[in-house]
Amino acid sequence: MLTKIEHIGIAVSNLEEANKTYETLLGVAPYKAEDVESEGVTTSFFKVGDSKIELLGATHEDSAIAKFIAKRGEGIHHIAYAVEDIEKEMKRLKNEGFKLLNETPKKGADNKLIAFLHPKSSNGVLVELCQDIKK
Amino acid sequence: MLTKIEHIGIAVSNLEEANKTYETLLGVAPYKAEDVESEGVTTSFFKVGDSKIELLGATHEDSAIAKFIAKRGEGIHHIAYAVEDIEKEMKRLKNEGFKLLNETPKKGADNKLIAFLHPKSSNGVLVELCQDIKK
Repeated sequence: MLTKIEHIGIAVSNLEEANKTYETLLGVAPYKAEDVESEGVTTSFFKVGDSKIELLGATHEDSAIAKFIAKRGEGIHHIAYAVEDIEKEMKRLKNEGFKLLNETPKKGADNKLIAFLHPKSSNGVLVELCQDIKK
Repeated sequence: MLTKIEHIGIAVSNLEEANKTYETLLGVAPYKAEDVESEGVTTSFFKVGDSKIELLGATHEDSAIAKFIAKRGEGIHHIAYAVEDIEKEMKRLKNEGFKLLNETPKKGADNKLIAFLHPKSSNGVLVELCQDIKK
């Protein structure tokens, strides 16, 4: 069960400029910036209602975000859905024929365990599942 | 002020197939289908937490959705944010330098007044503003 849209990830070329644009658009300042070294990105989070916008800036040219922008331009990179039990959902969706991009959950930004579904399984949309890491 | 992510619009080639995929993915059935003749689309809505997923299928080849898919393939078409007063938000964002795709609100699906911002203004993301039509 996917309980809500946790966030929408947007790939941007210049994170500093995009932060200003989204602060103006959304009417709120980003509440957090966080580097995810393993992914080669800096992330910036804005609260919007019960969800978040996550801006994604590449920190090096081999980053998946740099490659995404080189190929498709800036834009929406993924939709992340909140789940209660990520391993259970991964198993359920794999059994339903969705293709997982990682077979075990990995550590993402904002204190989450995450896993991705291949866009081919979900009409061209890169889907992230994310579960809060219990403290 | 953009109060929440009202929905995410996803362009799909085959709405019937996509409905099955998203019913499996999200774990809920679509609660509504609606034709928007002026846009040449059939829409299908799924509730996810406090937001919605809107699948968009073209009803003819001149539809903006058919053209989007021909150019970019299936995928996320727009992000819609809820606003209390669409005319006020349109004026505010225009003054801030965002480019409006329609100068006055128009009637959208799901009993909304809507307006779009050009993707160039918002890092490659087509942004929709939507306000409930008061009954």
